[in-house]
Amino acid sequence: MSQRPNAYDVAKLAGVSQTTVSRVLNDFPYVRPATRMKVLNAIEELGFKPDEIARSLVKKKTNTIGLIVGNLANPFYAETAQVILNEASKLNYDVIMMDGDSKNESLSEVLSKLLNRRVDGVIVATVKRREELTVNIVDSTIPILFFNRSMDNLEQANYVIVDDLKGSKIAMQYLIENGHKSIAYITITGYQEYSTFNDRFLGYKQALQDNGIAYNEELVFEANNHNSALDFSMNLLQTNPNVTAIFASTDSIALEVLEAISRCNKKVPEEISIMGFDDINIAGNPYVKLTTISQRKEEMSKLALTNLLALISGESSSPVQIVLEPKLIVRGTTKSTKG
Amino acid sequence: MSQRPNAYDVAKLAGVSQTTVSRVLNDFPYVRPATRMKVLNAIEELGFKPDEIARSLVKKKTNTIGLIVGNLANPFYAETAQVILNEASKLNYDVIMMDGDSKNESLSEVLSKLLNRRVDGVIVATVKRREELTVNIVDSTIPILFFNRSMDNLEQANYVIVDDLKGSKIAMQYLIENGHKSIAYITITGYQEYSTFNDRFLGYKQALQDNGIAYNEELVFEANNHNSALDFSMNLLQTNPNVTAIFASTDSIALEVLEAISRCNKKVPEEISIMGFDDINIAGNPYVKLTTISQRKEEMSKLALTNLLALISGESSSPVQIVLEPKLIVRGTTKSTKG
Repeated sequence: MSQRPNAYDVAKLAGVSQTTVSRVLNDFPYVRPATRMKVLNAIEELGFKPDEIARSLVKKKTNTIGLIVGNLANPFYAETAQVILNEASKLNYDVIMMDGDSKNESLSEVLSKLLNRRVDGVIVATVKRREELTVNIVDSTIPILFFNRSMDNLEQANYVIVDDLKGSKIAMQYLIENGHKSIAYITITGYQEYSTFNDRFLGYKQALQDNGIAYNEELVFEANNHNSALDFSMNLLQTNPNVTAIFASTDSIALEVLEAISRCNKKVPEEISIMGFDDINIAGNPYVKLTTISQRKEEMSKLALTNLLALISGESSSPVQIVLEPKLIVRGTTKSTKG
Repeated sequence: MSQRPNAYDVAKLAGVSQTTVSRVLNDFPYVRPATRMKVLNAIEELGFKPDEIARSLVKKKTNTIGLIVGNLANPFYAETAQVILNEASKLNYDVIMMDGDSKNESLSEVLSKLLNRRVDGVIVATVKRREELTVNIVDSTIPILFFNRSMDNLEQANYVIVDDLKGSKIAMQYLIENGHKSIAYITITGYQEYSTFNDRFLGYKQALQDNGIAYNEELVFEANNHNSALDFSMNLLQTNPNVTAIFASTDSIALEVLEAISRCNKKVPEEISIMGFDDINIAGNPYVKLTTISQRKEEMSKLALTNLLALISGESSSPVQIVLEPKLIVRGTTKSTKG
């Protein structure tokens, strides 16, 4: 690491002060265009990425990272946030969390606010596939790492995610191998906007196709919220009595589906199988015992943190791109139709 | 409000500038003792609380509040945080959250860090009864409001809590009226440190006494964590077959108890009744259907936010002290012993 050229080398080559290098990289006003050009040429000549230089200039670390979370009422976000908080605490890092799912604010605005509050790096747990970011997430002065959800066309971004497409296919393959042919799917409205939901739905369709089962639009439902998932499930069971399994795109939705089925006096798994996705803590409780796809949330959260810290310290360089293998966890809500 | 004297009046009476008033209130160095005394005398003469003056001096609002949360893996903290985030967003406030249960940092340190990051006010969702705070929470320059848990001997503090003692007595009264006499109780290690757990345990003991039932230490367990609650429950059922009900001091613990009972092949509520405390979302799911005490968490969270904002704007003055009535929610995990 010590061999890697730093801001001092850039300053020397450009014939300016390190402060000037810093100003150019941080887009400060009052830098003459000619000076700016000298600095940028030196950076190019030395073969650097601006973010590495910028980071080498940051002398005062805050030992604080930002964490942009999704809806905390979904245990997935709450439980992963807590793992990150615990790990950060062990490593003497503070975490400031902000809401990434606010209706009043774009992710860019939230991100800018965090950056203005001086953090050493940011983990972003929710992002739209085509989020229009005004913050430069590739060459930012501090590292930004996407967690759980990724964006399209961002080959240079840092991320730690699970392979949602594969997870969904594993879930479907298990149901199909257990004799289920008429499998309903519940996603959320606007699912195309998120890599997680988009990939899980693709996995549902691909698994059907791979197994020669026709895709039936009637069995797919976009829930506005968890309550509408409940209404849909009740309705589905009445109008499609041949459905033998429901694949919910999150465990939180699966819990609502279980509620609906209980209200319809149907038995799980004897009369209908339920598959979730996430493996939140409650999924393992014997009163729920939800069969689901594990996102390995503990591991994913720890990897997000340790990799962000490695980017901050300069031990790793961008892009860090980790895709975890999802895992099927068979519990009590699924059963073979073969008796 | 406009009739209320402000920092200008203090400055005038003391014969100093408003900046000096500000410096005195914010404990800046470089204020001569004699000047400081003049300002403090003027404040006293005008009959002010320093925090009101200090707030009138704050010209630039950040429209950001701080929220110090407890363990987010406990849905109570996650769900209440989300209500606060949603409400704040509607009112155009940002929320930055920090972990109040970190093992490496005192609450004072976390609070100081938030204050240094410029917020307009802070909601503190977890605090020990005898927390040693280095931050002056009564006369702080920005309002601080305790939520969920309160401290001892803090008659001037702002808080929005539920009456935990009463909630516990209501829960016990219900069990006793339903014929239960041998009622086990599960709390957490160090429960005396927190008002919530301390008051719930007091309620358990008072209800026994009020009903002429002897307190039996053997039926009380302090769990280190949720897993040990599971071990305890399994052990309890084997060694105390006469126990007909278990009162868990939180719903999260009750979920572990349900798990233990399921592993012992005992039936809830036919063979044993389970009572929780909190009313987290999952408690209402038909697969859990936990009888519990509602902390009215939605209402409590909204009141915490609106009252903090009223303190910030000056519409309310300290102390704001709200104690909500808890509510018994009877679901499916409790049953009369009378058949």
